[in-house]
Amino acid sequence: MANKVSCIFLAAAPGITQLLHHFQKRYAFHKSAVDRLIQSVTSRRTPRSVYDPIRYVMSGGGKRLRAVLTILACEALGGRARSALNAAVAIELLHNFTLVHDDVMDHARLRRNKKTVHERWDTNTAILAGDEMIALAYAVLQRPAGRTPPQVLAVFTRAFVEVCEGQGFDKEFESRGNVSVREYSAMIRQKTARVISAAAEIGALAANAGPRERKALRSYGEHIGMAFQMNDDLLDIIGDQRAFGKAIGGDIAEGKKTLLLLRAIERAGARDRQFLRSLRPGARIPRKMVDRVRRLYITTGAVDEVRRNIASMTRAAQRALSGIPAGRGKAMLSWLADELVERSA
Amino acid sequence: MANKVSCIFLAAAPGITQLLHHFQKRYAFHKSAVDRLIQSVTSRRTPRSVYDPIRYVMSGGGKRLRAVLTILACEALGGRARSALNAAVAIELLHNFTLVHDDVMDHARLRRNKKTVHERWDTNTAILAGDEMIALAYAVLQRPAGRTPPQVLAVFTRAFVEVCEGQGFDKEFESRGNVSVREYSAMIRQKTARVISAAAEIGALAANAGPRERKALRSYGEHIGMAFQMNDDLLDIIGDQRAFGKAIGGDIAEGKKTLLLLRAIERAGARDRQFLRSLRPGARIPRKMVDRVRRLYITTGAVDEVRRNIASMTRAAQRALSGIPAGRGKAMLSWLADELVERSA
Repeated sequence: MANKVSCIFLAAAPGITQLLHHFQKRYAFHKSAVDRLIQSVTSRRTPRSVYDPIRYVMSGGGKRLRAVLTILACEALGGRARSALNAAVAIELLHNFTLVHDDVMDHARLRRNKKTVHERWDTNTAILAGDEMIALAYAVLQRPAGRTPPQVLAVFTRAFVEVCEGQGFDKEFESRGNVSVREYSAMIRQKTARVISAAAEIGALAANAGPRERKALRSYGEHIGMAFQMNDDLLDIIGDQRAFGKAIGGDIAEGKKTLLLLRAIERAGARDRQFLRSLRPGARIPRKMVDRVRRLYITTGAVDEVRRNIASMTRAAQRALSGIPAGRGKAMLSWLADELVERSA
Repeated sequence: MANKVSCIFLAAAPGITQLLHHFQKRYAFHKSAVDRLIQSVTSRRTPRSVYDPIRYVMSGGGKRLRAVLTILACEALGGRARSALNAAVAIELLHNFTLVHDDVMDHARLRRNKKTVHERWDTNTAILAGDEMIALAYAVLQRPAGRTPPQVLAVFTRAFVEVCEGQGFDKEFESRGNVSVREYSAMIRQKTARVISAAAEIGALAANAGPRERKALRSYGEHIGMAFQMNDDLLDIIGDQRAFGKAIGGDIAEGKKTLLLLRAIERAGARDRQFLRSLRPGARIPRKMVDRVRRLYITTGAVDEVRRNIASMTRAAQRALSGIPAGRGKAMLSWLADELVERSA
């Protein structure tokens, strides 16, 4: 990755270390603008039974990946960060709404090393706080009043429709014996990649991009989104719980049909296959069992294959960037694609 | 009410009976256009785990009041029904989304004489189906692509934000001892009246109405919305379960702070007041207890006062209509305001 960026920037950049430092600073700069707007949008609102949990979720850290991506996409096409800020926060609210509701549905107890909303309060609170988050998202997306391009609203809404559909398939697959790799891919495209690709596309729209650039950023976002989800699947089984912020093995306990599981089932011997097939959602999965699953994911080559898939999706994302003009903004998107799959949390 | 319409229409209408018949036919005509669009928007979509419950809810009858009102408001200002149809369906989806999630939060078992979604399926299904309904609402609201006026999206979103806030206050009040009449009014304004007023205002916007007419219809909608909710509170205790489609006494079982309860507590003797205050949410309320509450609502005069409030809100709605041009469309809105509070379901 260092090579790639240095190739692009051999002439313009003073040195690779400085460039990386610049990217990190820029990311942090945008993230803090996003955090400030989130704070101003959610503060001093009532009823507290609805907004306290929202403030709890929205101040609970997180990388603000989707929001920062929205802004970076806008900047990479010559737009000003400010033009994308409201949409960036709307995307972040949409994403966090899905987390709050999905955590209820997945019985997740931890998120970013904090109790989930339904654990800290209760299910009713999580339902209503989530609902209000998506309502707020649309309110922020329409700022300043009357100035939001219809395409922005359309892309946002399509992502919203599909992220719910993706979650529906994900839950359906939990109780289904046979799920194909193709179905898995279609599911994570809807559930994870669509919001990330919407972030990039909306950033492009905020920069008044033409159709070619808009398409390039949509494709970039979709590919990093796919890579992101597969990396998340990996971290669920081989990650460090503190860094990951969620319980390790949660996917197994929930019966999630990840690519890791699908491939391991295909390739394991008869006894191991039977064991993998016997994993049922809802059951308390003991640590020893998680360890056995992890070993099987490694020995069957499932982990290696998923890593190859992640690398290939990341390359495809980089290729998509060929559709936008060279520059520091583009280099930063390229850097971001690599950063995402090297993350441990 | 018959007098009112005949005053308005003495010249134009051939006779009051024929006019009422015309209104009923017109209502049914718009309702069936709404039903058809709902059907086409929700059919043949997957995953079935998400869309089957949506189709179940959306085909489950209901008066389509908010949708038809959107269309009638548009027609009353000279617009074509067709211009308001997508927004009408969006409003109906927004309303039904709130029913699905509120029924989870209120542990309601029946809605329109059918099992609620979380009873028929489960809570997860109800959460996700509700989420998808509001996503679909925004998708339909933006049809045809790029043609939705920004004000329509703004009014819709404000209603969405407030209906969630209103539900938050409603739930907060359940566990609070002291709720004032003023707080009750503010709560039902957000929880019930805002969506109805948005329906009327969006109808006006679909007819390209000016600010004065827009404001008149917003006010009309808000007042009929307040009347509607107070009538609903009445039906919960003095209604017929079959016609009402929900369990009688549900508000008492949930600890709802209705105006009926607040006034009855103020006016009851010490022993009865203690009894009314002792009603706690979550408890199974036996029929005998519901009967005692009903008697107290009547003997303290709470029922009469709520009826007077409903009549006064309905008159205010009629007065708001003075801000729009006379005609058959206006007469129909006037008729609708009276119909709503004479309903038994």
